[in-house]
Amino acid sequence: MLEGGAALALLAGIARGAHAQSDVPRELERLVAANRILANEGVVDAFGHVSVRDPRNAQRFWLSRSRSPALVELDDLMEFSLDGAAIDARGRTPYGERMIHGAVYEMRSDVNAVVHNHAYSLLPFSITGKTLEPVVHVASVIGPKIPLWDIRTKFNQTDMLVRTMDQGRDLAATLGGNTCALMRGHGAVVATATLKQAVIAAIYLKVNAEIQLQAMSIGMPQGLSATEVMLSRDTQFSPLALDRAWEYFCARAGVEPI
Amino acid sequence: MLEGGAALALLAGIARGAHAQSDVPRELERLVAANRILANEGVVDAFGHVSVRDPRNAQRFWLSRSRSPALVELDDLMEFSLDGAAIDARGRTPYGERMIHGAVYEMRSDVNAVVHNHAYSLLPFSITGKTLEPVVHVASVIGPKIPLWDIRTKFNQTDMLVRTMDQGRDLAATLGGNTCALMRGHGAVVATATLKQAVIAAIYLKVNAEIQLQAMSIGMPQGLSATEVMLSRDTQFSPLALDRAWEYFCARAGVEPI
Amino acid sequence: MLEGGAALALLAGIARGAHAQSDVPRELERLVAANRILANEGVVDAFGHVSVRDPRNAQRFWLSRSRSPALVELDDLMEFSLDGAAIDARGRTPYGERMIHGAVYEMRSDVNAVVHNHAYSLLPFSITGKTLEPVVHVASVIGPKIPLWDIRTKFNQTDMLVRTMDQGRDLAATLGGNTCALMRGHGAVVATATLKQAVIAAIYLKVNAEIQLQAMSIGMPQGLSATEVMLSRDTQFSPLALDRAWEYFCARAGVEPI
Amino acid sequence: MLEGGAALALLAGIARGAHAQSDVPRELERLVAANRILANEGVVDAFGHVSVRDPRNAQRFWLSRSRSPALVELDDLMEFSLDGAAIDARGRTPYGERMIHGAVYEMRSDVNAVVHNHAYSLLPFSITGKTLEPVVHVASVIGPKIPLWDIRTKFNQTDMLVRTMDQGRDLAATLGGNTCALMRGHGAVVATATLKQAVIAAIYLKVNAEIQLQAMSIGMPQGLSATEVMLSRDTQFSPLALDRAWEYFCARAGVEPI
Repeated sequence: MLEGGAALALLAGIARGAHAQSDVPRELERLVAANRILANEGVVDAFGHVSVRDPRNAQRFWLSRSRSPALVELDDLMEFSLDGAAIDARGRTPYGERMIHGAVYEMRSDVNAVVHNHAYSLLPFSITGKTLEPVVHVASVIGPKIPLWDIRTKFNQTDMLVRTMDQGRDLAATLGGNTCALMRGHGAVVATATLKQAVIAAIYLKVNAEIQLQAMSIGMPQGLSATEVMLSRDTQFSPLALDRAWEYFCARAGVEPI
Repeated sequence: MLEGGAALALLAGIARGAHAQSDVPRELERLVAANRILANEGVVDAFGHVSVRDPRNAQRFWLSRSRSPALVELDDLMEFSLDGAAIDARGRTPYGERMIHGAVYEMRSDVNAVVHNHAYSLLPFSITGKTLEPVVHVASVIGPKIPLWDIRTKFNQTDMLVRTMDQGRDLAATLGGNTCALMRGHGAVVATATLKQAVIAAIYLKVNAEIQLQAMSIGMPQGLSATEVMLSRDTQFSPLALDRAWEYFCARAGVEPI
Repeated sequence: MLEGGAALALLAGIARGAHAQSDVPRELERLVAANRILANEGVVDAFGHVSVRDPRNAQRFWLSRSRSPALVELDDLMEFSLDGAAIDARGRTPYGERMIHGAVYEMRSDVNAVVHNHAYSLLPFSITGKTLEPVVHVASVIGPKIPLWDIRTKFNQTDMLVRTMDQGRDLAATLGGNTCALMRGHGAVVATATLKQAVIAAIYLKVNAEIQLQAMSIGMPQGLSATEVMLSRDTQFSPLALDRAWEYFCARAGVEPI
Repeated sequence: MLEGGAALALLAGIARGAHAQSDVPRELERLVAANRILANEGVVDAFGHVSVRDPRNAQRFWLSRSRSPALVELDDLMEFSLDGAAIDARGRTPYGERMIHGAVYEMRSDVNAVVHNHAYSLLPFSITGKTLEPVVHVASVIGPKIPLWDIRTKFNQTDMLVRTMDQGRDLAATLGGNTCALMRGHGAVVATATLKQAVIAAIYLKVNAEIQLQAMSIGMPQGLSATEVMLSRDTQFSPLALDRAWEYFCARAGVEPI
């Protein structure tokens, strides 16, 4: 899958770097797969994006150029410093909201993958003030608490996009140590230790929202306890469950389970 | 894609015309794409239609013959004057509701593309009197206010269709300067400056309705402020967002992103 | 498409008959198409069936052997007298509920096609006592009134199936002169003058139920007036609308629009 | 379909066994089909599993290795004793929750097939305490009563998985003589006399939940009477209905209807 300009840029970067680098090409191919999977599962539509921190350099991350995730190819991947500056743009236009990713990586050294998305089932929670929380064990991966960020609180009337590092840092501060945060009238951010985890957490964040919406239409749902969430999350992120899910979602999206 | 009778008619028209015309063939191919996209996204089913104002002649517009949008081909496109009279029917049967398009173009010189559709998620709003409003930023393209038109108010008991210019003008008057209007027990009309905008606005009108329906089942949704809608709309209709969405929806529908 | 035993049986029947018969083969091919369309649109799943009255003999109707509509082929079609007796079974097992069809044809000389189905969106109305009614113009084809039949009222505890002519006639009596009736905890019956009409009415019965369910979750839906329903129904069953819809649903199901 | 290591292991087992064995290969091919069908119908996603008791040896059952049902092949099938010990693992990793199956087979000699799944529509019932019950006749196969099991009652805070025979037996005790049980914040177990029945019951458990959820959003649904459920269940599990459904769901999943 490694071909064209991206591969050359990558190899040039590797040649310059002094860090361990053997898993960079694999991580970039996985990032393409992650884009396709999130599109295939309806987590993203025309909009939304997913990034991974550079395994060689914690001050950089990889993210597609401005393109719908369903269509992203290896050559679309661009590298950015944490402030959102492109390392080697080669004429490609970046996403306007890349600062979401940079600000989360800056604040959270434990995070190596970030998804920003607008899955439709999340949005009712973001505009009603109703709390989204894990109600089923497969969704324990979203963590016990999901804060809600409102750009208007600090930045007044805007076009709703996270366009500056100030805005990104404010969102990251609301996210805190959690895995997910909602953004009022906009979407969500998901931050995890690995790319596979980010994809699985983003998928089950959407699934949990669908289930919780239906449960709220018939009664008062009882979520998992915080202890159940933490215990179940360890299980769902163990290789037994995570690799099974990864193989499945890759197969559905028609990509190799790398 | 230009072949057969439509192309000949078009070329003949061009030969007769004195206006700038270079972008007409492209606009017609885009109109075929728009039909396919709206069908593929479930905005239209067997019924519904999309038109574009003739770039050469503001007193005319293009619209398919009476056929489901999923099946429309270049040769199905017919040209009409604003009163709904076919310029060169060649035996083709037009849609009964083409006056919706003509009346909107007549009243709104800023509008160059119109969609009429019955997306299922819109209809609950049209029959309950509940206000449909943009609740998420991607849907800011539908505009801050969506009026509801009831054919019965002025025309009493009918078969619900907009069959005359009088009826079309009454609907256009309710639409006013807005982007979208609902029609009681029937559907919606979407009017924008370009064909791409009309397609994207029609899609996210449906998406917004789905999200708002779910939000209303769990609480009281808080929409975007009017300022947020206007700022966000400018962003979503900028090339950065609009072209990304257009490429995506074209790819899903299997058409070239022209 | 006419081949094998069904064609032979049909030709033999034609040879014996004294009635006009030229449109029988076409009607049987259309019956296969109707099965595929109803399956493709989710009106039927593993269960449900559609029949057509024999154009040569008003005392007989055609219906598939016991098979899911998605899989029905020409050779599966069997002819029955109105009491549900097979004319030439050739070892094929009929549906247990064929008496629904026979009883409706017996009572309603204006009816030439019948659909029995369990579309999921209909069933909430059949078990809550809430009235299903046309709320949008494309669904005017279902008629202004949809009665609810409960097998238990006259036949006490049963397996819920319409297994006898007595049960079929009781259902037909509840149907009366309407186009559709619901069956408590079970499904619906749709009865129209032509096969195309039956397919379109069954599809938009399901669509109307989906829309009405969503409308009822946010407010009190206002249906069309009885006059609007009758006027709109004439329009939707006119060639302009009916043929457009038929071409569309055939194309979706991958069958020829005969 | 029989090839590779699984076939060899099976033949070796047959050579060792003294029981009737002619239908074992067929039952294993059917188990692969069952996996594919349940995935195709959305009963399982990345997670969930289905097993069948060994027709030769009531103390053993067959279940895939740890893999998503959509991807299961014949070579993934493993045999287990009722305590969940693998007979011939050959390096394959089993599901962590295989004790669900073993414990049900241990307690219920009438049960020969078990499905464990997390179909999304079931989960709202498992977290709200609202009773799931058969409301339509095609769903009578799920039985008149569906108890709810909560792992926390006896085992306190856990990762929600059924990991031990103690936990499996406690779940089986709650299941009792019923066909289905829900598991709080987790999913369901379905236990029937044959593999075909288990697949059909699991599918219509999901369908019934979808219908009941929608019914509860508009009113108070009236379920079938217990007598109606038992009478209808006999009908739906008769060859007339069961084989029709099996052929249909196999065709949808692209597997042979064995």
